[in-house]
Amino acid sequence: MEKFFNPKSIAIVGASRDIHKVGFVTLKNLILAGFEGKIFPINPNASFILKRKCYASVLKVPEKIDVALIAVPAKLVLKVLRECGKKGIKHIIMITAGFSEVGNVQLEKEIVKVTKQFKMRLIGPNCLGVLDVNNKFDTLFLPASRLVRPKKGNISFITQSGATGSTVLDLMAEEQFGFAKFISYGNAADVSETDLIEFLGRDKDTKVICIYIESIRDGKRFLDVAKKVSKKKPIIVLKGGITDAGAKATMSHTASLAGSFEIYAGAFKQAGIIQADTLEDLFNYAKIIEKSLKPKGKRVQIITNGGGFGILATDFLILSGFTIAEPSKSTITRLKKSFPATYTVGNPIDLTGSAFSDDYRKAIKICLQDKSIHLLLIILLYQTPQIDTSIVDDLIKFNKLRKKPLVVISMGGDFTRKYKNILEEKGIPCFTYPHNAARAIKVLSKYYLE
Amino acid sequence: MEKFFNPKSIAIVGASRDIHKVGFVTLKNLILAGFEGKIFPINPNASFILKRKCYASVLKVPEKIDVALIAVPAKLVLKVLRECGKKGIKHIIMITAGFSEVGNVQLEKEIVKVTKQFKMRLIGPNCLGVLDVNNKFDTLFLPASRLVRPKKGNISFITQSGATGSTVLDLMAEEQFGFAKFISYGNAADVSETDLIEFLGRDKDTKVICIYIESIRDGKRFLDVAKKVSKKKPIIVLKGGITDAGAKATMSHTASLAGSFEIYAGAFKQAGIIQADTLEDLFNYAKIIEKSLKPKGKRVQIITNGGGFGILATDFLILSGFTIAEPSKSTITRLKKSFPATYTVGNPIDLTGSAFSDDYRKAIKICLQDKSIHLLLIILLYQTPQIDTSIVDDLIKFNKLRKKPLVVISMGGDFTRKYKNILEEKGIPCFTYPHNAARAIKVLSKYYLE
Repeated sequence: MEKFFNPKSIAIVGASRDIHKVGFVTLKNLILAGFEGKIFPINPNASFILKRKCYASVLKVPEKIDVALIAVPAKLVLKVLRECGKKGIKHIIMITAGFSEVGNVQLEKEIVKVTKQFKMRLIGPNCLGVLDVNNKFDTLFLPASRLVRPKKGNISFITQSGATGSTVLDLMAEEQFGFAKFISYGNAADVSETDLIEFLGRDKDTKVICIYIESIRDGKRFLDVAKKVSKKKPIIVLKGGITDAGAKATMSHTASLAGSFEIYAGAFKQAGIIQADTLEDLFNYAKIIEKSLKPKGKRVQIITNGGGFGILATDFLILSGFTIAEPSKSTITRLKKSFPATYTVGNPIDLTGSAFSDDYRKAIKICLQDKSIHLLLIILLYQTPQIDTSIVDDLIKFNKLRKKPLVVISMGGDFTRKYKNILEEKGIPCFTYPHNAARAIKVLSKYYLE
Repeated sequence: MEKFFNPKSIAIVGASRDIHKVGFVTLKNLILAGFEGKIFPINPNASFILKRKCYASVLKVPEKIDVALIAVPAKLVLKVLRECGKKGIKHIIMITAGFSEVGNVQLEKEIVKVTKQFKMRLIGPNCLGVLDVNNKFDTLFLPASRLVRPKKGNISFITQSGATGSTVLDLMAEEQFGFAKFISYGNAADVSETDLIEFLGRDKDTKVICIYIESIRDGKRFLDVAKKVSKKKPIIVLKGGITDAGAKATMSHTASLAGSFEIYAGAFKQAGIIQADTLEDLFNYAKIIEKSLKPKGKRVQIITNGGGFGILATDFLILSGFTIAEPSKSTITRLKKSFPATYTVGNPIDLTGSAFSDDYRKAIKICLQDKSIHLLLIILLYQTPQIDTSIVDDLIKFNKLRKKPLVVISMGGDFTRKYKNILEEKGIPCFTYPHNAARAIKVLSKYYLE
């Protein structure tokens, strides 16, 4: 499987001069991404594309080919696949659509037969292929001008739906999420979600596995593999087709039977998989688990310079089944000594709109020493001029002590986003909305404590 | 009340040369915002601030003053307030904190007494005051470098919590929401949430009223007024302090008893108020109701170029209690005639990643003519190069026909956001996440059809 992500050479079968075609966009993206391996465009009707020499078939290429990306029309794939087999190519990414998802089941079966015959592994068909951020290997046939590629990071994302996966990738890249690997596996004719989970379980760049899934091929093996992998790293899944009408739509999408939601939910739980309800949750959960320490318990202390946010965060924590911390008597005494009477000492600690960065430092320092507090939810609204940005450096220092998980809520425009990105870069999970922070904290504690 | 938003002159009592003080920031903001009325800084120890002549007290100002903004320490407010009364100022915005919210109930009572004595109206204390986008009148004491001011629009936002309100304003401004009026009313010693709802009910610039509230002063009057106003324009409320722990925190925030959630929920329903569960919902609901047509029924047709998104949207609509449309036989026939066999005709209509803008035009045109479809949920993923942006102009044209509500889901980074903003500017509500779109569509139909 490693070769799929780190090939030394790739053939693009169906390379094209038409800038709207997959065979052109993929070639261009690979070059732009700075892929360091060899690229062989395959097209019997062209001599050069993007200044690269073309070959009439993979059999004409004089060198070894690790991966063949197939983007020819469905009716040509069997011929091309056999040529790949003869050439000794062991890894196929088949972008081409028009198989079981449109009722063309027989052709898909024949593809599988050929891949078995030649001992090849195949991702797809009807997929976008892979993106390996570390290796600059990028088969996504979507132009970089429309789809931002993410920075390096430790989240890997497996998706049955190419469009869902890629547009989510685009949004998350803009929100500064870091990715290791992205795999759109489409109809899963050969390589399945389970194979990919197993592989990412071993992958040292991957700390969190996110999955968008509509169906599972082999339930028993999926359970076995997921159970093992989830003990080593978190697996978070969003299941599409959880209603009857949604499930009906999965049939024509990835030719999959979505099956009963309850069965899936039960299986996920059994396998130690965290289930997300929405795409937003999927990545918020990934973020908090990727970045955060293991909390020692469920008692959350809120510190805020916005009273309303403190109240909303309290509401959402309680509604998520959480207990807010009761700071110890000595904590209360120390806090009261540190602050004017206009600040509210309790939970939340409301430093009010008058708060200076130094007030945050004092409050955090005291709370970090209180054993009845397990996690600090810091609501930090940067809009008031007294909040100088030295607090950002200090939060990073406090976080480095690795005493308790720190989670930050900051809401606002450009100014706020700038400091949010700095904190996240340094490993502190930040959220815009209190309800999202509360949901994520719940999942963090569930992952570690239940 | 109008004068609070459109004064010809304002005195800033407590104007300051200290750039961190409210009395400085407010003065600077008013000047920067381009406020066209007269501004009188009041400070007995300064001759000029920001090149404006200072006066020792409002009594020394030789001209009429419509609004006095009071930002002096709590112990000085009674003296200042009496001077305002003597000067004949009828509108007071009191920024100063340190009253009932910190147990100083008596002083707040005396303030109310003085305002009554001089027949003044007072917003605050412990508030940010008002922002009138049309009149460029801005008393928010938060620097524009940290808090983006929104563009003109038709949403007005009343908030009991200044920090919550202003940071939400910041985020929503960045997300291109347009606002008419923003009012942070704090402790509501005189002007209450009910007064503000009544006023906004009459305000021609306001089409949707959003409220963040922790408590209600006079329940009966609130109900009477809200009932009347909600018949003319939508009122959407987010209630803070809906759990016991959250309610406890409201006491020290805005000195209010949050009361039982069930009582509030019942009252809101009775008054025709739409209740939001989160800050995110509050503005998503405002957006869809502000922009969208009245749907004739609840049957939603989904059109997508991303199969997974179609499935997720279906799931979320069904989970929200919705029915997805069953397109008529003639619609199905016409769609099948228009598209290749690889597209799925049904609900969702899945144009697949191969879709061109022209395919959207065809599908939308046919669906607009089908009476069994009441609303079109168009999932438009811009990442594929075949989607040329002519579809944006066409969506605007289709929307102008005012046949059925159009709602768009687009997920992605900068490229996507650009076209999302254009569509919203032209009155088509757009969402990033399928679950948010489904929640908003539910509320739209509830507002008009239940």
